[in-house]
Amino acid sequence: MEAFLADYDHGAPTAFKGIAEGVENSNFFLQTDRGRFILTLYEKRVRTDELPFFLELMEHVNGKGIACPSPVPNRAGRALGELNGRPAVIITFLDGVALTQPKPLHCRSFGGATARLHDAVADFSQTRKNTLAVGGWRDLVEALGARVDDIAPGLADDLAQELDWVSAHWPAGLPTGVVHADLFPDNVFFLGDELSGFIDFYFACTDAFAYDLAICLNAWCFDARCNFVADNARALFEGYLERRALSPAERAALPTLARGAALRFLLTRAYDWLNRVEGALVVPKDPLEYLRKLHFHRTASGPETYGLESA
Amino acid sequence: MEAFLADYDHGAPTAFKGIAEGVENSNFFLQTDRGRFILTLYEKRVRTDELPFFLELMEHVNGKGIACPSPVPNRAGRALGELNGRPAVIITFLDGVALTQPKPLHCRSFGGATARLHDAVADFSQTRKNTLAVGGWRDLVEALGARVDDIAPGLADDLAQELDWVSAHWPAGLPTGVVHADLFPDNVFFLGDELSGFIDFYFACTDAFAYDLAICLNAWCFDARCNFVADNARALFEGYLERRALSPAERAALPTLARGAALRFLLTRAYDWLNRVEGALVVPKDPLEYLRKLHFHRTASGPETYGLESA
Repeated sequence: MEAFLADYDHGAPTAFKGIAEGVENSNFFLQTDRGRFILTLYEKRVRTDELPFFLELMEHVNGKGIACPSPVPNRAGRALGELNGRPAVIITFLDGVALTQPKPLHCRSFGGATARLHDAVADFSQTRKNTLAVGGWRDLVEALGARVDDIAPGLADDLAQELDWVSAHWPAGLPTGVVHADLFPDNVFFLGDELSGFIDFYFACTDAFAYDLAICLNAWCFDARCNFVADNARALFEGYLERRALSPAERAALPTLARGAALRFLLTRAYDWLNRVEGALVVPKDPLEYLRKLHFHRTASGPETYGLESA
Repeated sequence: MEAFLADYDHGAPTAFKGIAEGVENSNFFLQTDRGRFILTLYEKRVRTDELPFFLELMEHVNGKGIACPSPVPNRAGRALGELNGRPAVIITFLDGVALTQPKPLHCRSFGGATARLHDAVADFSQTRKNTLAVGGWRDLVEALGARVDDIAPGLADDLAQELDWVSAHWPAGLPTGVVHADLFPDNVFFLGDELSGFIDFYFACTDAFAYDLAICLNAWCFDARCNFVADNARALFEGYLERRALSPAERAALPTLARGAALRFLLTRAYDWLNRVEGALVVPKDPLEYLRKLHFHRTASGPETYGLESA
């Protein structure tokens, strides 16, 4: 640790604590005379050869004036180092607190900030395939098999039919770029009611901007009982549209994209649920939340359901 | 959370993160305009009726000029509150970093600071029984039973004999007061080579000061392979004796106290090892480290083994 920090130009640590943020990687709060940082040790699902993509994306987004953690280069000018045989980086500390139950005013600023994020990647030249996109869901459905019926009776059939429907109706040719793809309230910080920035870019990938919004819709516009909150959705799109337009095709695709986004999180949560470690400290998230959201999206008659005009 | 913080006088949070410190309780790093704090939610082994003892001890020690977290009273003047149905307190944030492999110079300042800590409780009027003292070890040995032989063949017999020996030779009438009783390097912070303070007082209890030192000896004076490091022990006692005297009786008792301290941690670690949750994030500590330390203490001819003169 000391040897690793000696490669950096920010003095001796005055505080160092493991933080319980991010299930995939180990994160440490690090304070030195020069400021506050997060030290991340990578493991498991994050592939080492993909790290430069994530780190350069964060740097790019930050350079566009959108607050997010930014990698700190070591004395050799490199962001990516190694500690205890694992890839390691130091990133800047982002002030702010995640909301547990966002209100419409938060959704409005979040929508605006997401539009800025989508604009910010226009000149980011790198791409990364979305391994959790519609083409990858069939593998997940097959890996789950009949066991998902342990979560809810009939779920296996429901998933198979939904996958067929979504695959058949998935829109092609929508405007595409690098999207965050995990914009849950956990990953968006606020100071009071002001949005202070985005964190956790490790699912970022090249996909439709409108699909990113469909993920937001699922994550921000349902209450704790998974009832749709129309005011949140309306505010989310109002905030977004103040800064960035959505084409008629993007708007028309929204109900399908919302079903797909709900299916994607339902599938990964069901997988984590069935493969959970008994007694582990990290409690897997309830997959059924996303089943309820999926069922809601099936009833959507068009973008108007989400408070968004058709054109 | 917001409602809980509203009871305090330190403004809106600018950062809030779960930290991986303390196995028994949940701890959160909390930053506000007024400073940095730790929010602790208590659970499990810490008994609610004992919390005032721990909190008042921290306040007392802090008031004596020994740096340690200090409870922050809420607007009603109370340190102990409630959050999510669990007892909760906010304590001040202590700067510093725990050492993984202390050197003699660290042991010397640690010894001096421990002497100050022992002096600081002279006028602390409360007491708390040490539930993990020699009288309580037999229950642990019985709870472990023959299963400990899964950890090391013959361990059950070894523990039973050691318990008999230690119980028969345990010193009576040594100077007693409130001791920390868990002064592992994890719980002592440094800024560079300077000791910055003590944390985690939740094992504090009324016991012999020399027994507290015997715990320190076990925790600070063995290397990663559990070989005794004579230079660390000598420095520890030199630092202590510069500020506080040890009687001939305390010195003579040291080898027995060291065996007892090793047995105490061997027993609780063996218990946690045998009752661990498979796949849980918190890896139980290796009980055999303390078996090796115990075997070393059996070879001690007197306090001189630890670099401490008899009188």
